[in-house]
Amino acid sequence: MPVYEDPIDARFLDPVSLRGWTAAVVRRMGTPDDIAADVAEVLLASDRRSIASHGTARLTQYVALVEAGVMDPVARPVVERERPALVLMDAQNGWGHHACRVAVDLAIERARTFGTATVVVRRSNHYGIAGWYALRAASQGLIGVSLTNSSPLVAPTRSRRPLLGTNPIAVAAPAGRFGLYCLDMATSTVPRGRIEVAARRGWSLPVGWALDADGSPATTPDAALAGSLHPLGGEEETGGYKGYGLALVVELLTGILGGAAFGPNVVSLFSTHEGPADLGETFLVIDPTAIDAPGAFEARLETLLQQLVESPTAPGAPGPVLVHGAPEAAAEARADERGIAVDGEHYASLVALGDRLGVPLPSDLVRSQAA
Amino acid sequence: MPVYEDPIDARFLDPVSLRGWTAAVVRRMGTPDDIAADVAEVLLASDRRSIASHGTARLTQYVALVEAGVMDPVARPVVERERPALVLMDAQNGWGHHACRVAVDLAIERARTFGTATVVVRRSNHYGIAGWYALRAASQGLIGVSLTNSSPLVAPTRSRRPLLGTNPIAVAAPAGRFGLYCLDMATSTVPRGRIEVAARRGWSLPVGWALDADGSPATTPDAALAGSLHPLGGEEETGGYKGYGLALVVELLTGILGGAAFGPNVVSLFSTHEGPADLGETFLVIDPTAIDAPGAFEARLETLLQQLVESPTAPGAPGPVLVHGAPEAAAEARADERGIAVDGEHYASLVALGDRLGVPLPSDLVRSQAA
Repeated sequence: MPVYEDPIDARFLDPVSLRGWTAAVVRRMGTPDDIAADVAEVLLASDRRSIASHGTARLTQYVALVEAGVMDPVARPVVERERPALVLMDAQNGWGHHACRVAVDLAIERARTFGTATVVVRRSNHYGIAGWYALRAASQGLIGVSLTNSSPLVAPTRSRRPLLGTNPIAVAAPAGRFGLYCLDMATSTVPRGRIEVAARRGWSLPVGWALDADGSPATTPDAALAGSLHPLGGEEETGGYKGYGLALVVELLTGILGGAAFGPNVVSLFSTHEGPADLGETFLVIDPTAIDAPGAFEARLETLLQQLVESPTAPGAPGPVLVHGAPEAAAEARADERGIAVDGEHYASLVALGDRLGVPLPSDLVRSQAA
Repeated sequence: MPVYEDPIDARFLDPVSLRGWTAAVVRRMGTPDDIAADVAEVLLASDRRSIASHGTARLTQYVALVEAGVMDPVARPVVERERPALVLMDAQNGWGHHACRVAVDLAIERARTFGTATVVVRRSNHYGIAGWYALRAASQGLIGVSLTNSSPLVAPTRSRRPLLGTNPIAVAAPAGRFGLYCLDMATSTVPRGRIEVAARRGWSLPVGWALDADGSPATTPDAALAGSLHPLGGEEETGGYKGYGLALVVELLTGILGGAAFGPNVVSLFSTHEGPADLGETFLVIDPTAIDAPGAFEARLETLLQQLVESPTAPGAPGPVLVHGAPEAAAEARADERGIAVDGEHYASLVALGDRLGVPLPSDLVRSQAA
């Protein structure tokens, strides 16, 4: 599981202050208050959960999309077609975080009436961490599923070219004393960010992570960055065709179902010269109380998780059996207590963006700094 | 991807004849005609698709469950609780194949009305190949998802004990000239059957397939059979915690959601002395025509699959990029043309079962035999 260590040059930022500033930056783009609040909320959730790759470190890139005229900062999602439990929304190329917050809320509302509901969004943009939307349903006692397609980085088994995204799957549910269970996983063995970290640190790569530009196993991060990622399972012998299948199924349920861009036709991540992203995102919500007494589902899930974390561990295990989402929930609690740890590069990007847009960082933003 | 080779000692059996005989065996247990027809249909689908582990080779074990009084051969599933798009059924410990055929048909019917629908089955038994139910929806132009929990064989990441089933995920959808797309995968790196084959053939095992009884990597099939399977992704470093998460999510959506047995509490596969299996199975169906023109979804999926199979291949690839379900569909066509290839052990089990129950094999069953 991911390990969340503070960067050596960490500054600790106040989450409330950072959220307020982020919303101000988004409003500076002409975006209405309520939409900006959604964007800031989702980006901060990522930072607080220590998923630095999907939070305010991306803000400069989002701003560049708006400034280049690629993304519409004022657009609101509209319902395009529907049956009672299946709805297609058109995000009209606005902020993905807002369109998808509206979409998951609609799925939640319909699930309460019909037992389950699915909302598919097209003409959307990057929506941050997939897990946020699943957690929104789980925090209301429901099972939430969140899926998105993304830029082609993953080579299907036997292919030498990246043709599918890292297409994440997030599933969250209430789990009693375990809080909210949350699996939030790319369907590749590792996300591209892990390769970039390995590059900065000069590491070699294990087999099963990535291919080079010729389709041979990549042993160095640089070779991998010029090539493609392996789907979960790695090589064909170790089940990589299953991870390829999962990436394809996410594509099928998002871009293909919703009529958005799909597969190799999705533009590069945060490209400012290839036109709108036209991503597809899908939210599925199930209300367990439709078929059982309130609390019964949570109690069973708590029992199962208890049985898992109590298991005797394998030799060499770095710790006890973990529950998905628990490391991120612990990071969130830490962030709220002592601030969000951001590295120097991330902090500098916030300073530069604030300066350029005339939205200076608040004086109460930095709580403390590593020695 | 799995390779389907004929056994050396293959007999080629007529599918129609074998289906008729299988139904007769099931009726001999006191099972009504329509239920027996469903059981035979699903078992034959597995044999025809070359998934020998889930077809008539299991018939002797199903019969043993009925004879031991563990499974009820006449029970019919009933709707227990429902909202319009989410239904809980009680299979009343009858044949899983029948209960789940009824369940997926109900999900199909409701999905046509509401856009999507989910049916969860509890107090069920083994239902054969997960893919059959997903394909039933796909053959009617819908997206079908089929999930089941199963006996604990998989060790969660860091655990030395098997606590979760190989909990398969099947997703099928119409794909134009590609026929029906069908991903049907265990969430372990390999199913237990692959280890059993390796044992018979004296192979060693790659890292990432299995653990021995102490929780260390199993290098021999015997060590693995005494231990547990790795979730998809293998070791923690190569993403095994994601496969563990997928197995857990399947558990969450089947046994936990439906109030069936779950996780380490599921009885051993085909045990005749641990009581009813009480498995949970879940079927989710989506009607793409609820939100787009008829044929539009299939056309997009066909385009994507075409882009995938046309991809230049990696060095050493054993063939072109494959589409999930295509090898099984080819096996099905072969089986219908020249008969189902069964090995000597499988054939002998059918002869023995027929003799014992007074349901002799039909004279037109064996079409031909390998020299």
